[in-house]
Amino acid sequence: MSETHDAVDVIRTKRDGHELSDSQIDWVIDAYTRGSVAEEQMSALAMAILLNGMNRSEISRWTHAMIASGERMDFSSLSRPTADKHSTGGVGDKITLPLAPLVAACGVAVPQLSGRGLGHTGGTLDKLESIPGWRAGLSNDEMLAQLEDVGAVICAAGEGLAPADRKLYALRDVTGTVEAIPLIASSIMSKKIAEGTGALVLDVKVGSGAFMKDAESARELARTMVDLGTDAGVRTVALLTNMSTPLGRTAGNALEVRESVEVLAGAGPEDVVELTVLLAREMLAAAGVDGVDPADKLRDGSAMDVWRRMIVAQGGDPDAKLPTARETHDVVAAADGVVVAMDAYDVGVAAWRLGAGRARKEDPVQAGAGVEIHVKPGDEVRAGQRLLTLHTDEPERFDRAFAALDGAVTVAPKGSRPEIVPLVIDRIA
Amino acid sequence: MSETHDAVDVIRTKRDGHELSDSQIDWVIDAYTRGSVAEEQMSALAMAILLNGMNRSEISRWTHAMIASGERMDFSSLSRPTADKHSTGGVGDKITLPLAPLVAACGVAVPQLSGRGLGHTGGTLDKLESIPGWRAGLSNDEMLAQLEDVGAVICAAGEGLAPADRKLYALRDVTGTVEAIPLIASSIMSKKIAEGTGALVLDVKVGSGAFMKDAESARELARTMVDLGTDAGVRTVALLTNMSTPLGRTAGNALEVRESVEVLAGAGPEDVVELTVLLAREMLAAAGVDGVDPADKLRDGSAMDVWRRMIVAQGGDPDAKLPTARETHDVVAAADGVVVAMDAYDVGVAAWRLGAGRARKEDPVQAGAGVEIHVKPGDEVRAGQRLLTLHTDEPERFDRAFAALDGAVTVAPKGSRPEIVPLVIDRIA
Repeated sequence: MSETHDAVDVIRTKRDGHELSDSQIDWVIDAYTRGSVAEEQMSALAMAILLNGMNRSEISRWTHAMIASGERMDFSSLSRPTADKHSTGGVGDKITLPLAPLVAACGVAVPQLSGRGLGHTGGTLDKLESIPGWRAGLSNDEMLAQLEDVGAVICAAGEGLAPADRKLYALRDVTGTVEAIPLIASSIMSKKIAEGTGALVLDVKVGSGAFMKDAESARELARTMVDLGTDAGVRTVALLTNMSTPLGRTAGNALEVRESVEVLAGAGPEDVVELTVLLAREMLAAAGVDGVDPADKLRDGSAMDVWRRMIVAQGGDPDAKLPTARETHDVVAAADGVVVAMDAYDVGVAAWRLGAGRARKEDPVQAGAGVEIHVKPGDEVRAGQRLLTLHTDEPERFDRAFAALDGAVTVAPKGSRPEIVPLVIDRIA
Repeated sequence: MSETHDAVDVIRTKRDGHELSDSQIDWVIDAYTRGSVAEEQMSALAMAILLNGMNRSEISRWTHAMIASGERMDFSSLSRPTADKHSTGGVGDKITLPLAPLVAACGVAVPQLSGRGLGHTGGTLDKLESIPGWRAGLSNDEMLAQLEDVGAVICAAGEGLAPADRKLYALRDVTGTVEAIPLIASSIMSKKIAEGTGALVLDVKVGSGAFMKDAESARELARTMVDLGTDAGVRTVALLTNMSTPLGRTAGNALEVRESVEVLAGAGPEDVVELTVLLAREMLAAAGVDGVDPADKLRDGSAMDVWRRMIVAQGGDPDAKLPTARETHDVVAAADGVVVAMDAYDVGVAAWRLGAGRARKEDPVQAGAGVEIHVKPGDEVRAGQRLLTLHTDEPERFDRAFAALDGAVTVAPKGSRPEIVPLVIDRIA
């Protein structure tokens, strides 16, 4: 950090397609965090990175410079190994809710720092906040105590973790520079490495409802993050999973909590159960724990026990009635046939417009709003049968949600077969 | 201007290599000028333009949106046609000083809006400000009156002309986005078109001392600007001229005024005279005036008469003694031989470091500082003979000027021949 650079020289280096030196990267992240590199300079650099890329060594240095901008957590005093999971975000992706208590029930501590939703994908904290009394903010000491006591915690990341990333993320959001794989990967991994987890499983979503629309770019992102984790001594594995159709049968905050509790009770939609168990197995393996089958822990109620203790520990009432929306409206099939496709992005946008999501960071969300999904690709339907139920507190929102859903569900003549994408597309370790 | 866009969408369009629509361009320039598109958004867009380019129609629309951000001048009330010249900047490029009065002496009015220097190239206004009493700031009415009365004016561009360009130029300077041909061309041409000249001659410099280091990119810039001028109804022609070696025998403010007066007196360095006359002929032709040879107007003293009246009209004393630097230092030849090269960039940096130029807009310049050039490529020299004389008020500046000049002058054994680059490399109309 001793060498001083000129911001314009650093920008020009990347603009002209050259490799940034370690010293340039350390300097620019530190100077940006302190405010001596201006927002307009960092945005020009971010665009140059988006268009010209960074190699593995640059991405690694960039990530570590962001970690060095803040504090690091330390879970080495815990009596159990730790494992965390990160999803790149999808529609109906409530997996963290059943997964964290399930893995804790298998003997591995889960320190899950989560975020709020922006745009068409939901945020884990928004979902949990629909539980009366539950609070997302914990001190580091509270987090450590809950991990030791309960084994699982889902909470907001503290202000001290990778502050450079917080600043850069907000900038990228308004400057069209979100979609840069080196910047996405370093943003996610700087927080996960600073958080101090021993093992990490990445759920990289692919498809219309995901950030990465095609498997090729998802694979590149996954590979970049696995390399970063491995280089930093975190046992890291990534699954590429299907997000062309919504996960489970709900998209919305309280709706998804309800479905998660069903899964913890040993029921719930098949795809949610399958992915939860798969990811749990990966987390246990990465944490070096074997001989435990997570499917058993769903069946025998021990995952549900951890869930209840986890909610109580953060002020929530696991027995409280969840909020419901004041108004509902059904979307029905126009003709007999077979559902061959349900577009995840369209359903996500509809849930967002119904009030489940936010357009700006400061917007509130409705706890009860969202979309209930009654059919899945492959199901036969009859004319007039319910496909979706829309929930909102504000009926004036229905029109824009309908508009988003135009063409979202494809019903083909009987005998047609849906295009089947496997739930897990690839595994990268 | 009625349609509203989202800044991130506009940035993404160019980032992803697509064409910006007319409406997007109009909106983004207007919103940026008003401050509702933020600096960090415009810098990301500028970087995307630098790396992905703009086509002819986008550049044209961008230029006109910048013109529309401010006022336009109108010279149609003048009794004479108008012609202007713009140089992309070089070392020792004082041509505007003799050229404007020379063309006026031939019957064409020259409304020359000029700037100050930044970096290794000098600024026309800085040079003229070394004349005691002379002032750069004129109102539009004063400018028009002087054009009618004297025929030539060299002054600072008013605040009202293309304010979007002023804001964008300052942003590009600190974000590594200066070197984008669409942005350079639209910056220059928006001011020239808004200024209202009827004809325009562009002197696009090529070589180490110029902004464009190679003929190919200079030709692209020239072609882009000629197209923009032509499309806007301005008769526009461009010359590509050599800037691998300094122009004339001086680089510095008062030093260049002195040399310009020598040219107006019918003497002066051969290359300065040649380029001044060539550009004058182009301006007369573009303004539709024929039957006058500018070389005659140098010889018969009528160009000098206009010069004196032009200086007096702006408060200057053409007979005042010009400032000289307090300290000088000679650079001498180490051995007998032939000068085969003198690097324009190195000489420009030396003059800048001696105090003739500025590193930041708010820095002052020294009137007397600069470099006197005693030999030109092709000249024979003897060991100990003066090659350059350095001028400054602050002798502590000599060391850094020497460092810049290391290797700047190449003396080869007798009989060696310099690489001769013609003064005019190409002409684009």
